[in-house]
Amino acid sequence: MRFGTATSVDGVREQHFTLGEIPGVLWTPEAAVGTRPLILMGHGGGRHKKAPEILALAYPLVAAYGFAVVAVDVPGHGDRPTDENYDRIATENQARVAAGEELAPLMAAFQALVARRTVPEWQTVLDAVQRLDHVGTGPVGYWGVSLGCGLGVPFVAAESRVRAAVLGLGGALAAGEPAGRITVPVRFLLQWDDERVPRDQGLALFDALASAEKTLHANPGKHGEVPAHELGSTLQFFARHLG
Amino acid sequence: MRFGTATSVDGVREQHFTLGEIPGVLWTPEAAVGTRPLILMGHGGGRHKKAPEILALAYPLVAAYGFAVVAVDVPGHGDRPTDENYDRIATENQARVAAGEELAPLMAAFQALVARRTVPEWQTVLDAVQRLDHVGTGPVGYWGVSLGCGLGVPFVAAESRVRAAVLGLGGALAAGEPAGRITVPVRFLLQWDDERVPRDQGLALFDALASAEKTLHANPGKHGEVPAHELGSTLQFFARHLG
Repeated sequence: MRFGTATSVDGVREQHFTLGEIPGVLWTPEAAVGTRPLILMGHGGGRHKKAPEILALAYPLVAAYGFAVVAVDVPGHGDRPTDENYDRIATENQARVAAGEELAPLMAAFQALVARRTVPEWQTVLDAVQRLDHVGTGPVGYWGVSLGCGLGVPFVAAESRVRAAVLGLGGALAAGEPAGRITVPVRFLLQWDDERVPRDQGLALFDALASAEKTLHANPGKHGEVPAHELGSTLQFFARHLG
Repeated sequence: MRFGTATSVDGVREQHFTLGEIPGVLWTPEAAVGTRPLILMGHGGGRHKKAPEILALAYPLVAAYGFAVVAVDVPGHGDRPTDENYDRIATENQARVAAGEELAPLMAAFQALVARRTVPEWQTVLDAVQRLDHVGTGPVGYWGVSLGCGLGVPFVAAESRVRAAVLGLGGALAAGEPAGRITVPVRFLLQWDDERVPRDQGLALFDALASAEKTLHANPGKHGEVPAHELGSTLQFFARHLG
């Protein structure tokens, strides 16, 4: 794990790193000492480790709650090289949707393919970050919607260190099977008028989660229109389960 | 409006009253002066104005947020005389369910009948309580689930003073039509394994609400098993919209 220069803003220390070929960012409280809860955040499709929705959660989690937050680029995203195989599939999928095929099953197959790489990658990220003195082996949470849900569901299912997760904007086609192996508390975000994930698919993914404690939050609006008040609600969810 | 003796516990003043034939309770901060937000709470079927779920919200709304809260008994409930007409319908409905009829449409018709009395009753309660110096004409909220949703949806639809509402555990059969006339922010609670309200009916009622801002909170469990963490979430909802 090689670290770049750290910068600090409003008590939040931001440190870029690379772990093997994976570029990432770690946010911790300035002058943090000792073990603390850690949230791994998975970004959306076509976005990256410092997307606005990641920063909007990372900063208050660190500044107000003293958590550590880590995000890495998914293969083919952010500071990672383009992946010829993924690009080819994406181009083919665009053509198939243009020819009348449904988007959801194609997206589901693609996310399952990418998850085969990201699940082990994210596990090595947890290993490395939890070895740092100012993070340590505290409770771990996961946050990811859209692509971050398609990749996050198999990750949370596979990774026993994760004790609570915020997921959503994803469907059962992509993640229904691994969802049945998730038993930790889950907050699930669904957009009632999602133009990318059919409503029934989102409800079916929530239904498939094996967690005894899970809450669906559904709001009107399209895929990218999760209302701002869910931000505070997510902070409180993590504080309640990991704080 | 005739008041009984007031009692105070932990800074919350509780005052029983009767308004015509309607028995009610008003909770306000001890030694309150001036205008404040007011929440009208509608109790569930077979319950009353001081049911535990009413008290669990009324006390923190008053003590922590400085709101006023009022609840009255629905006809045939609590301190009100039994209603022969309602009792006859309830008995007939039990027989029809025992004979194989579906519960939901029967419950819906019954709630619509009761709402024709409770909507004007609750409007006179608002009139009277808002004339009190220590309540005044501040913003008004409504809370009611189950029967309190079936009666609450037509009330919120009819009453322009209500600016935010928590509803739930009800279905579109009972309240779909008036729901389409509700435009204020709504928090809607749904129990994923509700044995009394079919899931599709609950989702359809949420869908029918015309509010631009509405959030569905769905949790696993039966009709009576709303998890405790929704209590804090409801307090924050009212504080955000009326505080």
